[in-house]
Amino acid sequence: MITLEYKKNIADSWFSYLQNQICKEFELIEKKKKFIKRNWYKKNKRNGGGTSFILKNGNIFEKVGVNKSTVTGKFEKKFRQKILGAEKNGKYWASGISVVAHMKNPKIPAIHFNTRFISTSRQWFGGGMDVTPSFFDQKEKKILHTSLKEVCIQNKKNYRKYKRQCDEYFYLSHRNETRGIGGIFFDYESDDWLKNFKFVRELGVSFIKISKEIIERKRNLKWTTRDKERQLIKRGRYVEFNLLFDRGTKFGLNTGGNTEAILMSLPPNAKWE
Amino acid sequence: MITLEYKKNIADSWFSYLQNQICKEFELIEKKKKFIKRNWYKKNKRNGGGTSFILKNGNIFEKVGVNKSTVTGKFEKKFRQKILGAEKNGKYWASGISVVAHMKNPKIPAIHFNTRFISTSRQWFGGGMDVTPSFFDQKEKKILHTSLKEVCIQNKKNYRKYKRQCDEYFYLSHRNETRGIGGIFFDYESDDWLKNFKFVRELGVSFIKISKEIIERKRNLKWTTRDKERQLIKRGRYVEFNLLFDRGTKFGLNTGGNTEAILMSLPPNAKWE
Repeated sequence: MITLEYKKNIADSWFSYLQNQICKEFELIEKKKKFIKRNWYKKNKRNGGGTSFILKNGNIFEKVGVNKSTVTGKFEKKFRQKILGAEKNGKYWASGISVVAHMKNPKIPAIHFNTRFISTSRQWFGGGMDVTPSFFDQKEKKILHTSLKEVCIQNKKNYRKYKRQCDEYFYLSHRNETRGIGGIFFDYESDDWLKNFKFVRELGVSFIKISKEIIERKRNLKWTTRDKERQLIKRGRYVEFNLLFDRGTKFGLNTGGNTEAILMSLPPNAKWE
Repeated sequence: MITLEYKKNIADSWFSYLQNQICKEFELIEKKKKFIKRNWYKKNKRNGGGTSFILKNGNIFEKVGVNKSTVTGKFEKKFRQKILGAEKNGKYWASGISVVAHMKNPKIPAIHFNTRFISTSRQWFGGGMDVTPSFFDQKEKKILHTSLKEVCIQNKKNYRKYKRQCDEYFYLSHRNETRGIGGIFFDYESDDWLKNFKFVRELGVSFIKISKEIIERKRNLKWTTRDKERQLIKRGRYVEFNLLFDRGTKFGLNTGGNTEAILMSLPPNAKWE
């Protein structure tokens, strides 16, 4: 029998392994700059912490953060009703990895990826991947969605549902805009642990492959200051989404996470008209 | 007897008058650029709307918005408990003016001012003024607080309480930072309508005087790209506050306000390290 302890340990190890793989692969694409590593701990060290890798001012990546954290604690009473399985005593354990890459070249889209395993009185996986271009490109969209569909089908996951959830989640209601060209988003996956864990692993590997493909297609494209301007306006929307709506950001800030690590998702700069 | 209708009409007129005064005075300081005026309406025009004045890329003001709106409607059930006097049927009427000025010269602080009259089953005034420098200046802080204290004392208002409320409100808990050097902040002023309305008017006039003084002291100061850099980082904090915490922003976005007008408070650009 697979115990909960075992699940936690192996999920945690996977996220660390994936974090290192992503950084290695991104450094190979990047060529110029290297990631800088920082560890952080919650106020009470026994409640865990995380490791964040950040790379700035590169050839390809203007700013990319690769965060992994494993934390435990008790939700404050007012949040308990909102978290699956936390109604009773508020206890949680959570481990996950999240990546946000903001590119120097405005022709290359921003890319986001996240997977997590959460344990309250219930256990589930969640995560997703989505892409935010400043310049729409039908072929890019097709590459993204074809690859994501493939990994879903191979793992008997409902791609159409995940795609719809992504569009619904990454939506700026006050702007009546989607954040980007979508991707997949899933949460509360709790039916078959081994199957779900395998899916989460394969999605992580696919994320690396898809990112490389998207970047390599466009790394040599020329761009102008006007193109950059457009990217900065789009980044403003990214900031709005992350601070107004993103659940991960709220979760982090509300549970005493590391502010620098949580807000690493913000772009290096942004504009508002 | 002063009827509620009368109170609403005269408060609404005052906010319009003040809006025009502020724009005139700011154009005199600015010299180079003029305000552009835009009207907006709620989906159902009978629920009101507003007028926003915006001036961009000036000599003094990199971006300044002067918004006035008068709106009415019904709060959604989930918000009613949070709004004074709206518990029963959720109906509200609200009129107010808000100003946010982001300066070109990083040595001049960003300035914010707001006053409002709200009517549910209760009626009250709220508002305040606060200042956010990128470069701390003891004398500037003194000018601000001395003037605000004066207008409070002349109107028999508790300056110390308002100052404390400002420090508490404009606080970035996730950063363990105040937004700036404070000012005053008040809400739910409902005791003596005429007295409160007079205070709100005098604060509006003081705001113009204080802003001019703060700007004129520093308009000729030299600054470097490094100073600008520091201002952009500070503006990132401003964005974080407005999108994560500001009640006015939440109120606006939750009640079908005009997104462009609400987010006019955001700086023209910002950076994150």
